Amino acid sequence: MLHLQSESTTRWLAQVDENLDEVLIDHAHCERKAASTAMSLMNSYTENRKLCEEMARIVEEELEHYFMVLDLLEKRSIVFQRLQSGHYGRELNSLTRPQEPHRAVDRLLIASLIEARSCERFRLLAEHIRDRDEELATFYEGLFESEARHHTTYVKLAEQFASRKTVMDRLDQLSTQETAIIAKGSPLARMHS
Amino acid sequence: MLHLQSESTTRWLAQVDENLDEVLIDHAHCERKAASTAMSLMNSYTENRKLCEEMARIVEEELEHYFMVLDLLEKRSIVFQRLQSGHYGRELNSLTRPQEPHRAVDRLLIASLIEARSCERFRLLAEHIRDRDEELATFYEGLFESEARHHTTYVKLAEQFASRKTVMDRLDQLSTQETAIIAKGSPLARMHS
Ligand SMILES: [Fe+2]
Ligand SMILES: [Fe+2]
Ligand SMILES: [Fe+2]
Ligand SMILES: [Fe+2]
Repeated sequence: MLHLQSESTTRWLAQVDENLDEVLIDHAHCERKAASTAMSLMNSYTENRKLCEEMARIVEEELEHYFMVLDLLEKRSIVFQRLQSGHYGRELNSLTRPQEPHRAVDRLLIASLIEARSCERFRLLAEHIRDRDEELATFYEGLFESEARHHTTYVKLAEQFASRKTVMDRLDQLSTQETAIIAKGSPLARMHS
Repeated sequence: MLHLQSESTTRWLAQVDENLDEVLIDHAHCERKAASTAMSLMNSYTENRKLCEEMARIVEEELEHYFMVLDLLEKRSIVFQRLQSGHYGRELNSLTRPQEPHRAVDRLLIASLIEARSCERFRLLAEHIRDRDEELATFYEGLFESEARHHTTYVKLAEQFASRKTVMDRLDQLSTQETAIIAKGSPLARMHS
């Protein structure tokens, strides 16, 4: 359903255990960036009313998530700050083909994969910490469903720019590359490291 | 209260009368761009929680305005489409000083002046067309108050980056330049031509 070709490994969970505060800070940035991505798609395809409406909904939800994570940080006395960006978003976005309508399809599908990976990791994190940190587990359980929904929304919107078959083939290609990018790991502890 | 140093002239109203559909289309773009500006400020100053909260509120309101204008266009069978951008935003934004914290102050104050000019023009337009187009007059009357509020929000936020006196002096300078830019006019019929 999430079109991911790999599951997150114990490597990532070990990294989270060692750097939980940093991963939580990164999570806040992820939500803000997710809102920004949706806004940027609205700016690029502003003549597409359906896309604009879906993007506006996502902007609103991601901003709500952003403030939920900021509140969580505050509650835990974790100082929110800028972080060096991980490799994941940058490498994934670099796969965008420049020519339209390929560009639109790729931007939407890459956004869909980021949402899918967030969803997978939120769920995994919730399970992983349930015994030790009930509050955090409940927090992540409350978030993963909307990320799954965002995944689906982005995939469907890509079909406004290409046939369903073309979209699903490209999603398959991009998902293979997403798996390769995530498999590399990163010395920076991030939600998508 | 709006810190504007000039009133819109009959030149602009004549241009609106001749190109009302185009100005309405431009207005939709203005609302989307206003949402984008707020998002972009949130991205740049994400560690400032107060700014982020105010920006999130503005994003939401501008997107609401955007869809209100799109609905109005649809009701009037005006096809929404891309338009060549006018000179106003580009010339005004070019006044931004590159170094922080000047950059933050300027970005916020320029946003405040764009809001102020929108407010002034919405009110003027409402008065101007009241006799001929009751629906449109009511529409613009419903919008100008929130643009005045946005103006004030941006000016206040600038005080997070400089003293009140510095902010007000710079606002005065930028407002003088805003008046010069608007006085030039433009062959393109726009909300800020
Ligand atoms: Fe989210
Ligand atoms: Fe999401
Ligand atoms: Fe607005
Ligand atoms: Fe506004």
